[in-house]
Amino acid sequence: MRVAILGVGTVGEQVAKILIQNQKLITARSGKEITPVIGVVKNLNKKRDIGIPLTDDMDAVLKRDDIDVYVELMGGVDYPYRIISEILKRKKAVVTANKALLAYHRYELQNIAQDTPFGFEASVAGGIPIIKTLREGLSANHISSVKGIMNGTSNYILTSMMQGGASFERALKSAQELGYAEADPTFDVGGFDAAHKLLILSSIAYGVYGKPEDILIEGIESITKEDIFFAQDFEYIIKLLAIAKKVDDKVELRVHPALVAKDKMIAKVDGVMNGISVVGDAVGETMFYGPGAGGSATASAVISDLIDIARDVKSPMFGYKIPLELTPLELLAQDEIRTKYYFRLTVDDKMGVLAKITNIMSENNLSIDSFLQKPKLKGDENGVTLFFTTHTSLELDVKRVIEILTKQEFVKEKPFMIRIEG
Amino acid sequence: MRVAILGVGTVGEQVAKILIQNQKLITARSGKEITPVIGVVKNLNKKRDIGIPLTDDMDAVLKRDDIDVYVELMGGVDYPYRIISEILKRKKAVVTANKALLAYHRYELQNIAQDTPFGFEASVAGGIPIIKTLREGLSANHISSVKGIMNGTSNYILTSMMQGGASFERALKSAQELGYAEADPTFDVGGFDAAHKLLILSSIAYGVYGKPEDILIEGIESITKEDIFFAQDFEYIIKLLAIAKKVDDKVELRVHPALVAKDKMIAKVDGVMNGISVVGDAVGETMFYGPGAGGSATASAVISDLIDIARDVKSPMFGYKIPLELTPLELLAQDEIRTKYYFRLTVDDKMGVLAKITNIMSENNLSIDSFLQKPKLKGDENGVTLFFTTHTSLELDVKRVIEILTKQEFVKEKPFMIRIEG
Repeated sequence: MRVAILGVGTVGEQVAKILIQNQKLITARSGKEITPVIGVVKNLNKKRDIGIPLTDDMDAVLKRDDIDVYVELMGGVDYPYRIISEILKRKKAVVTANKALLAYHRYELQNIAQDTPFGFEASVAGGIPIIKTLREGLSANHISSVKGIMNGTSNYILTSMMQGGASFERALKSAQELGYAEADPTFDVGGFDAAHKLLILSSIAYGVYGKPEDILIEGIESITKEDIFFAQDFEYIIKLLAIAKKVDDKVELRVHPALVAKDKMIAKVDGVMNGISVVGDAVGETMFYGPGAGGSATASAVISDLIDIARDVKSPMFGYKIPLELTPLELLAQDEIRTKYYFRLTVDDKMGVLAKITNIMSENNLSIDSFLQKPKLKGDENGVTLFFTTHTSLELDVKRVIEILTKQEFVKEKPFMIRIEG
Repeated sequence: MRVAILGVGTVGEQVAKILIQNQKLITARSGKEITPVIGVVKNLNKKRDIGIPLTDDMDAVLKRDDIDVYVELMGGVDYPYRIISEILKRKKAVVTANKALLAYHRYELQNIAQDTPFGFEASVAGGIPIIKTLREGLSANHISSVKGIMNGTSNYILTSMMQGGASFERALKSAQELGYAEADPTFDVGGFDAAHKLLILSSIAYGVYGKPEDILIEGIESITKEDIFFAQDFEYIIKLLAIAKKVDDKVELRVHPALVAKDKMIAKVDGVMNGISVVGDAVGETMFYGPGAGGSATASAVISDLIDIARDVKSPMFGYKIPLELTPLELLAQDEIRTKYYFRLTVDDKMGVLAKITNIMSENNLSIDSFLQKPKLKGDENGVTLFFTTHTSLELDVKRVIEILTKQEFVKEKPFMIRIEG
């Protein structure tokens, strides 16, 4: 089986290396020699230690008749979409790690691919075989929820804020120095990367359509050390979660920081690791943990797809041989989210302020579950900070309360809210 | 696709129920209606709420031409081996949850099955799709180790000893009352159940042959509350681990209680849950967590195998299309195990005893890494208890030291040892 690698960066290099290093084992497991024969790169002058010929002539590689599988590792959306569509139309198999592409065009690609193998295990949670697990391992289940830490950069930052007491800015800087965060970290810390992965998983769990712009995406940029410490007082850990959840006949899809109960397995996923919990009606609660990124972990997933293709093991792309008979599940409107909430609120240290706050809350259907007020420190001129959590509430009510509180004179900073996930 | 269920206990009932309850979804996912048409039971008088016809005539069911897949859930070894061999010879697909059968006869069954589908996802770790994960999801990897908590009963007992301070006997009794342990718990607490599962996983990870009698199996019966508390002082948690590990050209297979570093994910797997960590050369460290037993979790795995058969998704039984070219890996002799060790030792409270112990140890190549002696309590007539851990040592040396210590007059009880797993 002859493989072309389109885009030879960290992952592509590792795919070629591991195919060569583990060749004996991979041949035994797959029944075929899987050989990387050519790599396509933009810049031929960049030195790469990869052991296969390189070219910058994409068109020539696409036209070759001796390639059985194309591995797309370029990133981006429009260009790879065009390239992959062309390849699939020629009935050549494709393996990709490109989550952005799939977040936008997965159903179009499914239509074009039809019976041509199309692997994308590497697009979600790097080395963790979560696509296969959801699509095949848990196929007997109605999925109640998929909740996960799907972005290693954000998790690294939150972990160092928690363990080292660093501020967001300092933790981000150290992540950048260690190569865990990009110079422009928005894609990771803003929740967009996790959202792309969530959309892919939600197609398998629920068969839902949805693009990044359809779902709630919030990042971790506004989390402070204080939030983390006070959450710990309430027995919670703060994580950036990507959540797909069935609520009656609708599906909630959202990415945001969340307070997670300390004793949940997912709260124990630290550093750059990923962890995804899946709850199914038959299986109950499961959790899958591993490195969510990195050249060789991602290459492990890419090659597992190649081995499946060599073995002629082929599941339906999103796990449905027949489109779901039920009306396709609808996305739940963001205002209809129901969960518990955590608030951080800095107010004037005056008589009656607390009564005013609780009045505003109860008039808008919010009730307080727990409350914490730090003793005011000397020289602390900027008011006192209140921390509290609510009972289960409607997102619409929460938004209204934040809006009303923001306008009050005694409120010194825009109130900050984090959702709580059991 | 018509299914016969051989053996209708807790799991069989759930297989039938879920196939009926989730039928719409399962049909969409598998492309076929998967219908349980008959159940075979020993005792027709026992009331079962299952919704399919039952019979006690096994032979008649085996001869039926309208059955596509047989699900074996009877347990035992010899009888199911005979039955399944017969079915496979007729080229009918089989799905089983029977780990004891596979621990003894998996390679014979592989030979008989040839290309006939044979699913056994449910035989290891109930609802966790660990077979599929190892065989397909991580197929690119040389596996360094598979370490896991594969027996929920033992883990429940160890967890309640740790969290509730119960003795082994009291924790076992509560497990029996809750239905987590059998009246005769030997199979679970003695490590045999975990050993069966380990042998199955080792065939996928390493292609090794091996039967339960070939490997080291120790149970948790001798663990005391003190061991657990003192392990915690050393930052460890005690777990019953099943371990498959590559050491040079050999494979270590062993089941025994082990001290696991507190911050490892596997140390966080509590109660009846299972957790299996797999380390691969490409992927790094991964961990898979979920309910390891229970009717409906196990049924989830059985049905995922049925769906794979309906989808015509078929991987080689242990993941090798071609037998490994390398000499099949040999099992490492038990005396050649190298790890760190924990000791509990009750001795006379006399001058010079400690010097004698350390002399015996150093003469036999053991060196102490950490040491703890409890202050003697009033009325504690039975000597003092010493707790210590060693640097990495050879099992053979450890055995010799235990033998020598046992013979010393100042040693009041047979020394007790637990292996340490990073």
